[in-house]
Amino acid sequence: MDIAIPIFDRITALDAVGPYEVLSRLPGATVSFVAAEPGPKRTENGMLALQADRALSELPSPEVIVVPGGFGTRALVTDEAMLDWIRHAHEHSTWTTSVCTGALLLAAAGILDGLRATTHWLQYDLLRRYGVTPVAERIVREGKIITAAGVSAGIDMALMLAAEIAGPELAHGIQLGIEYDPEPPFPGGLPATAPPEIVELVRARADELA
Amino acid sequence: MDIAIPIFDRITALDAVGPYEVLSRLPGATVSFVAAEPGPKRTENGMLALQADRALSELPSPEVIVVPGGFGTRALVTDEAMLDWIRHAHEHSTWTTSVCTGALLLAAAGILDGLRATTHWLQYDLLRRYGVTPVAERIVREGKIITAAGVSAGIDMALMLAAEIAGPELAHGIQLGIEYDPEPPFPGGLPATAPPEIVELVRARADELA
Repeated sequence: MDIAIPIFDRITALDAVGPYEVLSRLPGATVSFVAAEPGPKRTENGMLALQADRALSELPSPEVIVVPGGFGTRALVTDEAMLDWIRHAHEHSTWTTSVCTGALLLAAAGILDGLRATTHWLQYDLLRRYGVTPVAERIVREGKIITAAGVSAGIDMALMLAAEIAGPELAHGIQLGIEYDPEPPFPGGLPATAPPEIVELVRARADELA
Repeated sequence: MDIAIPIFDRITALDAVGPYEVLSRLPGATVSFVAAEPGPKRTENGMLALQADRALSELPSPEVIVVPGGFGTRALVTDEAMLDWIRHAHEHSTWTTSVCTGALLLAAAGILDGLRATTHWLQYDLLRRYGVTPVAERIVREGKIITAAGVSAGIDMALMLAAEIAGPELAHGIQLGIEYDPEPPFPGGLPATAPPEIVELVRARADELA
């Protein structure tokens, strides 16, 4: 089974690597990191490069697509090569998924028209502009399309997807294999549950970066 | 603040990328991926390469060290260049940490002698061989040394470390920034809480790989 993760400069690494770590453990799965041009793609802060091994054109019809997010998505919402690849791949895919602001690329490609979807909680408005209804849920499923919330939500989404693809026993085994028994140090990893001053801190920092 | 993540072939990507995603968000932090020889380092399954930008020798004394795991650690427990780097870096570090089987490298470097530590639940015996007491906890702290359990535990460890370095408010902000409000699909991400047949499934699969 071919699983394609399109990557790009200014990506958020965990958006891609969380799902990779889960889905690459599916028996018979080949996860490929693809890009318009193969080569190293740097994260937003420039501190890490992930290697894109293959061109988008080499893998037009993977069974599963996982579109990660990051500030780099903002430039790609008008990049016809990327959007065409997503449209074509989605036509043939078994599952089309996104993590964080990867949902903006699905939206820009037109495949979320009129649907519910999620993205990073700071970016709900951007989704709305594409006629998509943003939902404050960790994972939103619309038929074969699954969108996950910010960054770390890709791990949960991929485990759920693994269960759909290979059954709950195997997915549970993968969860155990990556020892995913989370102990977040703070209660409140969501804007609705975190103290308002912490929410403001994150919002201000994001405004700075953007 | 210099944060070094030594990487190598046959690494487990999430071991490194989880902590990177958290620690790179600390104000003033520079996370560097280092290796004996800079260049792309492939994961165990060959499907992803992370780029090592700098040589170990270029960054001998980072404030923080995060040693990730993966099958590649087995070859490195006798690699004197890596072990010397760890020993020297640890002498000067503020925090020395590991994720998953990265703990084997700390143990082989001799810096866990007589201490408690954790690693992937499948590898407790390997730690014991180095005179280290393996502990079934997600995060184990011994002074300035922090070891984290398997793969995904590096995210929790890094958030705890972020709180030590920059205070709980900022660390909580990072948790919210990566929307870390986990919803693992299965209860039981630990061998003690998962059904025995799932534990056996994972154990058998690990034996195959090893």
